[in-house]
Amino acid sequence: MGHLFNKEIALLFFEGSEKKAEIIVDSQQLCLHQDISDEFWATMVTRCDACIVSRIDNDQTKAFILSESSLFVWSDRLLLITCGSTRLVQALEFFLKRVNHQAILQLIYQRKNEYFALGQPSHFIDDSRRLNAQVNGVAYRFGELYGHHNYLYHLDNQYQANPDNKSCELLAYEISEAASHHLTQPSLNTADIRQFLRLSELLAGFTLDDHLFDPFGYSLNAIRGDQYVTIHVTPQGISSYVSFAANIDLFEKIPQILAILAPASFDLVSFNEREFATKVAAFVPQQYISKTLVQNDLSNDVKVSFAHYIRPQHHYRTPVKLDLSGEQQVF
Amino acid sequence: MGHLFNKEIALLFFEGSEKKAEIIVDSQQLCLHQDISDEFWATMVTRCDACIVSRIDNDQTKAFILSESSLFVWSDRLLLITCGSTRLVQALEFFLKRVNHQAILQLIYQRKNEYFALGQPSHFIDDSRRLNAQVNGVAYRFGELYGHHNYLYHLDNQYQANPDNKSCELLAYEISEAASHHLTQPSLNTADIRQFLRLSELLAGFTLDDHLFDPFGYSLNAIRGDQYVTIHVTPQGISSYVSFAANIDLFEKIPQILAILAPASFDLVSFNEREFATKVAAFVPQQYISKTLVQNDLSNDVKVSFAHYIRPQHHYRTPVKLDLSGEQQVF
Repeated sequence: MGHLFNKEIALLFFEGSEKKAEIIVDSQQLCLHQDISDEFWATMVTRCDACIVSRIDNDQTKAFILSESSLFVWSDRLLLITCGSTRLVQALEFFLKRVNHQAILQLIYQRKNEYFALGQPSHFIDDSRRLNAQVNGVAYRFGELYGHHNYLYHLDNQYQANPDNKSCELLAYEISEAASHHLTQPSLNTADIRQFLRLSELLAGFTLDDHLFDPFGYSLNAIRGDQYVTIHVTPQGISSYVSFAANIDLFEKIPQILAILAPASFDLVSFNEREFATKVAAFVPQQYISKTLVQNDLSNDVKVSFAHYIRPQHHYRTPVKLDLSGEQQVF
Repeated sequence: MGHLFNKEIALLFFEGSEKKAEIIVDSQQLCLHQDISDEFWATMVTRCDACIVSRIDNDQTKAFILSESSLFVWSDRLLLITCGSTRLVQALEFFLKRVNHQAILQLIYQRKNEYFALGQPSHFIDDSRRLNAQVNGVAYRFGELYGHHNYLYHLDNQYQANPDNKSCELLAYEISEAASHHLTQPSLNTADIRQFLRLSELLAGFTLDDHLFDPFGYSLNAIRGDQYVTIHVTPQGISSYVSFAANIDLFEKIPQILAILAPASFDLVSFNEREFATKVAAFVPQQYISKTLVQNDLSNDVKVSFAHYIRPQHHYRTPVKLDLSGEQQVF
């Protein structure tokens, strides 16, 4: 996406890696669809330095494209995904201060390790401690410190998750030069990107909302009933990153997505996917090697899986020359 | 090693990843051995928030163990290696302000990506810009942004490196539980560690100086004529890290070192090793896969090679539980 990650540091890298929160409420006590206005959501996202860019809805789901990623709202759930140097935890604090905690059944806050961590206003641990000042949770790191990893905080309560509330993410790092070139063309429009990502089959029957950012970046929200798919593209060369998140099954689409983007590495994250190991064995192409595999049943009965795959490199590359004089987009 | 990476953040992680600088001078104009006092070096290292812990020498080489890593001084060269949240660049600025730049033939400043980057006082780009305020250099990133990578700055001048000035590094991440357990025993002494790392053969004929830090950590400097080997061990569990750096050939020792430490991943860095590709093919065990390979001939004719190897993971692990209440050493 198009924003500076930190205006104080004169670098044009954009931190694509997302922070993500899901809150599940008792919709008998608090219906997020009916009891909470769009103005509330607009204010909430400003607390993490994002704003609403556009909105679609159907009778079950509201979907907002944000200046940094997306917000989805259902009657009993919300999903907030933000990237860059946004402070998602502040949006959660805003929500927690205004809502009866009795109505909150679960809160899961996730944060992928960042690649320009110095540009982040906080560490995940700081965020978790802030949440623990209002609620009671536990936190984990999925994956080695010295490799890709995913942090996760969740409420430590009696709530047991609905096993049908499945979701998954595919996070693709350093896409091919050809894909990066295609997705950074000045004349690009949203129809071109939909076609390039071959979304027509994946999103058949979905209502779509997508947005191109200036100078680069693309976000898409898609909804059908209570189903969602959201795609965020940071296409710029050496720091390119594309994320897919959905509550439909993305696993069978892995070969197609990897064929289009050809990333150097990717992560898979899933919630409540009992067949994770079987599915990655079936759908991850042979040329990718599993570097990290982590799985756990949380105390709320959610099965969380995290995997990081790399493509072995057999040929020597040349290094990337950095620009020390100006504000070039390399570091 | 034993210091807090950043006392303002109540986490006991120690950033093992090193910053490293080599300066080559014209010893006819400035003999670093004779013209510069130990007091100068002591002051210089305080500028990067380190201090000298101990010292050995021979007729060609002085070797200092620092509170954070090591300093070596020869008549025509110095090598400064620091870890944690030290500001190595400030030691370089100190040196550059006090020495006639005519005598400086080359300066190479390297920095590995850090794993708690938020605890660092600067980014490599900031450091390079500070150096460029005094001298004229160029900078590169070796390796993908989204994986292990190594930054390198060097003077952009007419100097051509001596091809016999070779050096190499082996940086081992997340050593085995058994190795970590052995190296964190309360009763451990330096003789135990030398034996555990089987240093007697590697360092035959070398003068050794080693130091155990409290509560954890081990540093060793070894010199023989103008040869050096330096080893730094951060043994603590999930953030364990062991680095070897030397101007003798470490390649043939790779199988032995990996057999002892069994790291989840490791980096190799070499300077002026023309046979890098052949040697890694010969000595890196089959169970490690090359994730990143980068090579370049710098304008000063130094061939720099960087490689990152991983051990594929086939079994699911459980996540690491984080401590949100106190000052436990996990994040």
